[in-house]
Amino acid sequence: MKKYSEMTKDELFAELDTVQTEYNKLKKMDLSLNMARGKPGKAQLDLVSDMMDILNSGSNYEYDGIDVRNYGNLEGLPSCRKLFAELLGTDPDNVFIGGNSSLNLMYDTIAKAYTHGRINSDIPWSRLDNVKWLCPAPGYDRHFKISESFGMEMITVPMTPQGPDMDIVEQLVTDKDVRGMWCVPKYSNPDGIVYSDDTIRRIASMKPAAKDFLLMWDNAYCVHELFGEFVPFPDIISECASYGNLDMVFEFASTSKITFPGAGVSVFACSKSNMDYIKSLLTVQTISYEKVNELRHVLYLKDKTGIIALMKKHAKILAPKFQCVLDSLEREIAPLGIASWQNPKGGYFISVNVLPGTAKAVWQLCKEAGLTLTNAGATYPYGIDPQDSNMRVAPSFPPLEQLEKAMEIYCVSLKLAALKKLLA
Amino acid sequence: MKKYSEMTKDELFAELDTVQTEYNKLKKMDLSLNMARGKPGKAQLDLVSDMMDILNSGSNYEYDGIDVRNYGNLEGLPSCRKLFAELLGTDPDNVFIGGNSSLNLMYDTIAKAYTHGRINSDIPWSRLDNVKWLCPAPGYDRHFKISESFGMEMITVPMTPQGPDMDIVEQLVTDKDVRGMWCVPKYSNPDGIVYSDDTIRRIASMKPAAKDFLLMWDNAYCVHELFGEFVPFPDIISECASYGNLDMVFEFASTSKITFPGAGVSVFACSKSNMDYIKSLLTVQTISYEKVNELRHVLYLKDKTGIIALMKKHAKILAPKFQCVLDSLEREIAPLGIASWQNPKGGYFISVNVLPGTAKAVWQLCKEAGLTLTNAGATYPYGIDPQDSNMRVAPSFPPLEQLEKAMEIYCVSLKLAALKKLLA
Repeated sequence: MKKYSEMTKDELFAELDTVQTEYNKLKKMDLSLNMARGKPGKAQLDLVSDMMDILNSGSNYEYDGIDVRNYGNLEGLPSCRKLFAELLGTDPDNVFIGGNSSLNLMYDTIAKAYTHGRINSDIPWSRLDNVKWLCPAPGYDRHFKISESFGMEMITVPMTPQGPDMDIVEQLVTDKDVRGMWCVPKYSNPDGIVYSDDTIRRIASMKPAAKDFLLMWDNAYCVHELFGEFVPFPDIISECASYGNLDMVFEFASTSKITFPGAGVSVFACSKSNMDYIKSLLTVQTISYEKVNELRHVLYLKDKTGIIALMKKHAKILAPKFQCVLDSLEREIAPLGIASWQNPKGGYFISVNVLPGTAKAVWQLCKEAGLTLTNAGATYPYGIDPQDSNMRVAPSFPPLEQLEKAMEIYCVSLKLAALKKLLA
Repeated sequence: MKKYSEMTKDELFAELDTVQTEYNKLKKMDLSLNMARGKPGKAQLDLVSDMMDILNSGSNYEYDGIDVRNYGNLEGLPSCRKLFAELLGTDPDNVFIGGNSSLNLMYDTIAKAYTHGRINSDIPWSRLDNVKWLCPAPGYDRHFKISESFGMEMITVPMTPQGPDMDIVEQLVTDKDVRGMWCVPKYSNPDGIVYSDDTIRRIASMKPAAKDFLLMWDNAYCVHELFGEFVPFPDIISECASYGNLDMVFEFASTSKITFPGAGVSVFACSKSNMDYIKSLLTVQTISYEKVNELRHVLYLKDKTGIIALMKKHAKILAPKFQCVLDSLEREIAPLGIASWQNPKGGYFISVNVLPGTAKAVWQLCKEAGLTLTNAGATYPYGIDPQDSNMRVAPSFPPLEQLEKAMEIYCVSLKLAALKKLLA
């Protein structure tokens, strides 16, 4: 197969004919497939459903000297804080256990900066004329939506294979209106990039002009290896501390993709000063989070070793799905030279860069053939990809046999959109 | 026994001697008792722990066509919305299921008014120079803390046996800076007062000058009868609607005192316009709340009849505790004429008005004898009771035998503080 860029116009027209026929055939199958979100599939949920046997009416609900069924212990069950401290490589005192959603903890952290200010803010951010925010992109759409909801001015920072382009970041943070930055440091969403040690060092040692700069370190995929062994990762709290930026960072994680997406536990980690301050605000918001589920997780997951062992079982379910996507792309698309993609070693996504100016068209073609993908553009601030090129493929939810069909649709749509563009 | 007000100085001094000796004896017992919060006791937690048998690894986690373990369904499991709609007497579409804390839902509702404005606000409240808020008092300290945290100017509204003094409320809401009001309409915290139909009608038909006035209707004790049968209660959503105030009210409730205080489900109810608006904000904050626990509640509680039957079992545990407090007060304090109190038919508290100017002293005396009570003043905005008289007694947590000892301390402290005041 020739690259499309090397084809004559006649050859392209002939290819268009073939591809259009293939597409029409797929469209007629009246499929309904969804690869829009990083949603674990049923096999992964079944894998961990024995967690529901951990507690029953005969259980002892007193743990760490606390009746987990009752009110109290805002910061979470001590054993649960310890478990996540081990996982993140930080101190249990730095760890706060939240409800079922780390997104909610992130939202609250930013909401409180707006309503009350950060620990070292002069005034609440709601009183500022402008809040600028650094958004490495492609990135996570739900992060960008939080920024957008609070009216931040989002500034796109390009991603490199080592993480956000730090030359640009270091320049941008000299602007005192730049108040923070989103990061998914390990297996970034959607690129699956692991920030290099050098990138992490440069982030931790930034000297932002805004003294209340907030580094949002969403370590969502901290133990989410797909291929190969667990990859150790630096503790951002102590990294920041070692450069005098102790209070700059809030780290987040959850068990949403370790146990249940809708019924896990979430966590943030931060410095002692940040913890004291945020607890003084959170104690007004709620009496305590859900300690019964915290205990369930402590007893089920046990420790870091237990979690990593479980993640290997998840990987066994997930890796073939990722392989299926990668194989399809390699087989169908690579020879045509119309797209490039990452080969992630972990995380939940495959980031595909299609022919510039065709991502929205590909999305639409897939949609019409019954395949829902993450919106084209979603990986960029305001949902606008200036190149109209990046697409986030989420292989986790459909069973493998559906995924194969989905990838047929995807690859054909990708070709069709490219041909139409080239022939326009 | 004579009333203290009828005693001669000599008689008061003799009584002081006796009471001081009694107090010293109790103090020497080195007790540690807690009646500070409306925390259910262990017997109540054990009562409902069979809820933990409802789900296990063999359960079907697909319910209402939804896999409750996975992401999705922001507004909650349809069956759970239906259950609470029946309980509150409203439509399932008006109901949103949250996490384990209705306080958190209340906080979020107000936080969003500050960061984004209400559905009918001109600007977010954070941009207003002043937000005034009506606080019927004695009231719930955690409500007042939310108002205080957001810098509201709290205005105390006296409580009457029918609810908040509506002559005063109707006057106050003509001020366009008055943006809202706290209400605990059934078995109010701490008085245990049930708002009369007339009070509810007058609240629902208010004409606040602020078009984005927010009625915070915390129906925390909607099925929490202690003595006697379930008392039906009007649906505030339709009440408000019938007076053209459809979008004025958010109602809140939870199972914190039906199932587990730290691990129940919470709920708000509001008009369709409010629901659409608040969901457009909440969808940025979280993907979904904890549907596994929602399913657990649906299967365990079944329906309103099931809930009311369960509440009768709670009442069987709680009523003797309330009776113990009331009997002690009646026996020890009533003849002396130094305090008055409510006789609640439901809820979680007994509101005691001690001799003005002695509440803080009583609290301190109790503390020194090993009994922790709700802070004196806590039932008023800013924690300041202008009369230094109201005390909230929370009998639910200690076992009955401890409660008897606690009431000994309380009554003796009450007498001692009164005597010292009268002899000062």
